[in-house]
Amino acid sequence: MAEGLRVLSVDPGTQVVGYAVLDWAGDDAAVVEASVIRLTKFGSYTDRLLALHRALREIIQTYRPREVAVEDVFFARNPRSALLLGQARGVVLLTAAQLDLPIFEYTPAEVKQAIVGHGGASKQQVQRMVASLLHLESVPRPHDVADALAIALCHCHRTGRSGREQESSGALS
Amino acid sequence: MAEGLRVLSVDPGTQVVGYAVLDWAGDDAAVVEASVIRLTKFGSYTDRLLALHRALREIIQTYRPREVAVEDVFFARNPRSALLLGQARGVVLLTAAQLDLPIFEYTPAEVKQAIVGHGGASKQQVQRMVASLLHLESVPRPHDVADALAIALCHCHRTGRSGREQESSGALS
Repeated sequence: MAEGLRVLSVDPGTQVVGYAVLDWAGDDAAVVEASVIRLTKFGSYTDRLLALHRALREIIQTYRPREVAVEDVFFARNPRSALLLGQARGVVLLTAAQLDLPIFEYTPAEVKQAIVGHGGASKQQVQRMVASLLHLESVPRPHDVADALAIALCHCHRTGRSGREQESSGALS
Repeated sequence: MAEGLRVLSVDPGTQVVGYAVLDWAGDDAAVVEASVIRLTKFGSYTDRLLALHRALREIIQTYRPREVAVEDVFFARNPRSALLLGQARGVVLLTAAQLDLPIFEYTPAEVKQAIVGHGGASKQQVQRMVASLLHLESVPRPHDVADALAIALCHCHRTGRSGREQESSGALS
């Protein structure tokens, strides 16, 4: 694994945040860890942001990934949902940046394209393919874990090819 | 000022973040500092979040406010804008929470109600009233500064009455 890539992927949410740590070497991926951070036990969303920040920092310090992959969300049910999701996403990006990790972002369609081969694949197709690619006996549950694994695999597949690092995407103003 | 309240208010944005530090004693407010954090010089939004976090932390450590007031935004032009604004807002909330500051949130209508007396007031009315209440010779510029001052004043006026601390607002799941 000396020349492999260890990636942390995060699927941000306001209640449950899925994450996965994958080792990628050659053409093969091995799951190091995949789980969820549950935020619903915290009453206010500021407490949730603080809990998310602390949990992610601990995950990064424990597993020491070299890169972070995060789903890029272009829409939400409504602006209020988007605002709350954005708050969680902001904490994910900040935490990774504070620990000097490069951040790569993939849209849901890019993840589907990388895993199944077309951007219109169903969630179920993606989940079954994730289990198959990682030699898992069943589809990981809850779905947030499968989603995080899909994002990590997408990043591994694209690394060295068209990986789109956020830092190089230019001005956003 | 020993028994007064020092409040930091923040008007989050993706390009410019307005902030103000007010001392409130009796029925009078004094401006300690009011300015903006400009984020447009940073290329990626992760760099912006990191810059925002560092600037806010420094402001809090310099002025040592006891409470933080933040505008609560219920809508945005579209979900994408809301997501990006949410990311900035998440960093503001996290930074204040990391430094153990209680956070109070006010909607734009609540700010207008507190400053002008009715929630449908125009931005210009609010700005002129802010200048008048704070005995300023002119309306503060850019408008982000005036907005932050309005949020701080709103918090001062409501403190001890119906101040709505986010932490006590119960579960959000």
